[in-house]
Amino acid sequence: MKKRISILGSTGSIGRQTLEVVDRFPEKFEVVALAAGSNVDEIVRQSLKYKPKLVSIGKPEDVQKIKPLVSEETIVRFGIEGMVEAAVLEEVDVVVTSVTGTLGLLPTIEAIKAGKDIALANKETLVAAGDLVMALVKEKGVKIFPVDSEHSAIFQSLNGEKRPDVNKLILTASGGPFRNKSSKELINIRPEDALRHPNWSMGRKITIDSATLMNKGLEVIEARWLFGIDFQKIDVVIHPQSIIHSMVEFVDGSVIGQMGLPDMKLPIQYALSYPDRWENGFPKLDLLQIGKLTFERPRTEVFPALPLAFEAGRLGGTMPAVMNAANEIAVELFLAGHIGFVKIVELIENVMGKHTLIKVPDLNGILESDRWAREETKRLSGIKL
Amino acid sequence: MKKRISILGSTGSIGRQTLEVVDRFPEKFEVVALAAGSNVDEIVRQSLKYKPKLVSIGKPEDVQKIKPLVSEETIVRFGIEGMVEAAVLEEVDVVVTSVTGTLGLLPTIEAIKAGKDIALANKETLVAAGDLVMALVKEKGVKIFPVDSEHSAIFQSLNGEKRPDVNKLILTASGGPFRNKSSKELINIRPEDALRHPNWSMGRKITIDSATLMNKGLEVIEARWLFGIDFQKIDVVIHPQSIIHSMVEFVDGSVIGQMGLPDMKLPIQYALSYPDRWENGFPKLDLLQIGKLTFERPRTEVFPALPLAFEAGRLGGTMPAVMNAANEIAVELFLAGHIGFVKIVELIENVMGKHTLIKVPDLNGILESDRWAREETKRLSGIKL
Repeated sequence: MKKRISILGSTGSIGRQTLEVVDRFPEKFEVVALAAGSNVDEIVRQSLKYKPKLVSIGKPEDVQKIKPLVSEETIVRFGIEGMVEAAVLEEVDVVVTSVTGTLGLLPTIEAIKAGKDIALANKETLVAAGDLVMALVKEKGVKIFPVDSEHSAIFQSLNGEKRPDVNKLILTASGGPFRNKSSKELINIRPEDALRHPNWSMGRKITIDSATLMNKGLEVIEARWLFGIDFQKIDVVIHPQSIIHSMVEFVDGSVIGQMGLPDMKLPIQYALSYPDRWENGFPKLDLLQIGKLTFERPRTEVFPALPLAFEAGRLGGTMPAVMNAANEIAVELFLAGHIGFVKIVELIENVMGKHTLIKVPDLNGILESDRWAREETKRLSGIKL
Repeated sequence: MKKRISILGSTGSIGRQTLEVVDRFPEKFEVVALAAGSNVDEIVRQSLKYKPKLVSIGKPEDVQKIKPLVSEETIVRFGIEGMVEAAVLEEVDVVVTSVTGTLGLLPTIEAIKAGKDIALANKETLVAAGDLVMALVKEKGVKIFPVDSEHSAIFQSLNGEKRPDVNKLILTASGGPFRNKSSKELINIRPEDALRHPNWSMGRKITIDSATLMNKGLEVIEARWLFGIDFQKIDVVIHPQSIIHSMVEFVDGSVIGQMGLPDMKLPIQYALSYPDRWENGFPKLDLLQIGKLTFERPRTEVFPALPLAFEAGRLGGTMPAVMNAANEIAVELFLAGHIGFVKIVELIENVMGKHTLIKVPDLNGILESDRWAREETKRLSGIKL
């Protein structure tokens, strides 16, 4: 039976790679819905190729550009409501949430409410609202399959193991393009430097997050919720080769790790094939060619985003949502050339310092804190946008 | 409920480490039987401590030395019959086969026939008679838990996975003490050089086997039977740090590996705790302290034992038993100072060359080939023993 999928963020990096996996296994998938932000050309191309029941685009004015170009049978919607519609369609089995940012939160929650399984590539969902979302996942009995390579690695390392036997999760981090730079050298980093990731091909936002190590911080919080593990049982190790994608240490001292070439198609495929594995003909890991795997302590004094994320996670409540929202805006400001690289985390820290924590927020409380943090980040930056 | 164990080879390296695991978890085990070769003092000490129902020693004349020193309630037996009795006692749940050499074959087979689960540390059992033994395992519905660190690693990496999804087993090898030596340098190796293993604390025979890489060859054949995988799907990679104990590559390109400090107590414990994991307080792996893991191609031109073992495995029938028996004698001759290090594998190859292969042997055929190979090895060495 074909797996009927909906892809939120289908024109982004993960969305496009998801469709590459679909192309590799056309007999296994039916693409039911696609949602994109602003890339009209690409969503039209995808729509003609996969003939989904529904496509959605960000802005209402783009609907009229799309409609004449796609099949008459394809419903065209827009905005967050369109994205939610794409997520909850009756025909959908699994929703790939590959949209970037807090934008992914609402459609993911609606998909879970509608009983859909989730292939989770939107880490902000669990960062901002992990407690709420996981309670809902439990209530609805749906499954979450991680798409992030680190969480996929942990998920795979836990296969056949019992949760109480877990002693520690060990997330690996490439360290990003500035792994060996000093705090001083980071001051003059330009966006184009930060966008050159040594190992992974990813979107712009996540590539900057990798350079600040905020990406790893977000992943720590995501892992906390996904695997139900306390922060003191999560370690981060710098592993520049990005071959061991993450590990689990068990109570008996045994460590299971998942390895592979750094190619997002592998964890995407596993999220969709689980519990099966599909032969794909992709290039295979050759440890003889790699030669060595190295491990270093994260230089938290130079990359304060990582300890900041641990702190936000431990504080809990609305704080991770605030940190995440401030980060999204700060990264935008950096990419637009308005602030320097080091200023990204300084801004986030300042916003977090001004936030009045709500310990047990509901969804509105989270979204409100998110909005507040975005405004506050802009305000503190002194930039008129 | 306590696991009632019988340890064959209780005074050897694995046997003693098994009892250390028992000491760590006294509430989990009852030691029902112990069998040793010639170490009378140690079996007496163990007998007084663990109060087994039965102990067995190699030679009949040692029975009278042991009897007055142990409890009157402890039955004392000798020889291969005594070892078989220790293996098949009604009270025994699992037999730890930590005796070295082909000696372990018969008691292991009898234990399986008696419906006992096996914690397999005697690799010669599967090397010499893998086909027969695995058929018997299937017939009797018993379980085999590997004790070798490599096979334990593969066993753990297969947790929750499906056998047809396996693409390749990747056995790691430390490379032994002579990893970087040239063929010429190997000529003058003395037994005391070869007995210094860089990572693992093991018995004398297996330490020499590690130096020649014959140990890895035996493990390849063991893995072939234990996991039902063809030889062309088994790779060996030199990994001098002995941290990744082995790996499994799946059809989708994902590689799962098991890591840990090189301590035999970990795989011994897992073989006895499976499917549970027990907190043991042993030192934990710290990848930051290890710093790097390296991988090299095995230098088969310098260490011909490895390709020789693959060849014996592929030829099948009685050939692996012959290779193994010739190796046991050749290692003895080397340890006694009668032959040089390089001569070990030369002798084995010569014996294999003279062997008339029986394609589908019964147990007698295997034991007969084993005996023939021992005699032939001695004869070809020209040493009067």
